[in-house]
Amino acid sequence: MQNASVEQLVQYLAKLPGLGPRSARRAVLHLIKRQDGLLKPLIKAMDEVAREIRTCSTCGNVDTNDPCAVCTDARRDHTIICVVEDVADLWALERTAVFKGVYHVLGGTLSALDGVGPDDLNIPTLVRRTDSDGVAEVVLALSATVDGQTTAHYIADSLNRETINVTALAHGVPVGGELDYLDEGTLTTALRARREVQ
Amino acid sequence: MQNASVEQLVQYLAKLPGLGPRSARRAVLHLIKRQDGLLKPLIKAMDEVAREIRTCSTCGNVDTNDPCAVCTDARRDHTIICVVEDVADLWALERTAVFKGVYHVLGGTLSALDGVGPDDLNIPTLVRRTDSDGVAEVVLALSATVDGQTTAHYIADSLNRETINVTALAHGVPVGGELDYLDEGTLTTALRARREVQ
Repeated sequence: MQNASVEQLVQYLAKLPGLGPRSARRAVLHLIKRQDGLLKPLIKAMDEVAREIRTCSTCGNVDTNDPCAVCTDARRDHTIICVVEDVADLWALERTAVFKGVYHVLGGTLSALDGVGPDDLNIPTLVRRTDSDGVAEVVLALSATVDGQTTAHYIADSLNRETINVTALAHGVPVGGELDYLDEGTLTTALRARREVQ
Repeated sequence: MQNASVEQLVQYLAKLPGLGPRSARRAVLHLIKRQDGLLKPLIKAMDEVAREIRTCSTCGNVDTNDPCAVCTDARRDHTIICVVEDVADLWALERTAVFKGVYHVLGGTLSALDGVGPDDLNIPTLVRRTDSDGVAEVVLALSATVDGQTTAHYIADSLNRETINVTALAHGVPVGGELDYLDEGTLTTALRARREVQ
């Protein structure tokens, strides 16, 4: 006896990552109760994103303009490219406000299991970009998973190491992390990469 | 460097129950990647709900029409009213397809802590409805929490018990539940309410 348009909305919302049918139903009821306060502003915000947002053809970021605000920012260092798996990782790095270079979004990692090869990711465009743009350094900011590290090795091998310095994020104990709770892999890496105390 | 309209959408989505800022960000990226497959249909579905859905003035259900499809269904037994806290509970009961009466949505439970009194809920309308409509039974389908049971007792006391049979959902071991994992309250209730095996 559930209304058809309500059921339709539940089904679309349930497709979002992090929401299942049950939480989508709760979300829809929440929206119906807050028509003016939430549902209508949400429709407006989605509509704006649908009309305005596009993918940057240079780096793969999402923005109102193509090329995106990062790629067109003259104050940023265009000789350093940070390679990330997804736009969410780009956002996470931007929140730290430490990296002043530009980005390249791969769109995933290589995965033999899922049949994802180099041509399914933005690796060829990265190679072309580093060949022409006077790029000095490529920072690989990929997940510390098997697939992430495989991808990092593949990219490092694909780049011209004579002109480009290829670096990767440091591995070690996360800030605020307690040794007790860390896995052996992280501890081993942190121990091997130990640094002299200044 | 996150785009303003993207950030706006993240903030609205993060207000939905079950989504926080991090999962809202993931959801927005998911939507941007699936503009035609998900974002646009979702906007359309929300728009339809915003335009069409209203609250039933009789029972508090949400539907395209007022009174709702349940209240206007002549095949249902209008002498039995099932009292639920929320529309989500009504939907849950409808999915079982066992109850053939009509509903009354309270909009919450009494709560001294949160300052929710009888007049904040649809209790007065329930009393009026049972006084006039030739109602024979009121089924209290409320949560087995302190607030839920307080509300159930309050409603039972408010109704005319001479003409109305007030019942409540059975408590006991949930179907598929393992005794090992059940709390003592449920076990005690189930033991006290034990039934002869047929």
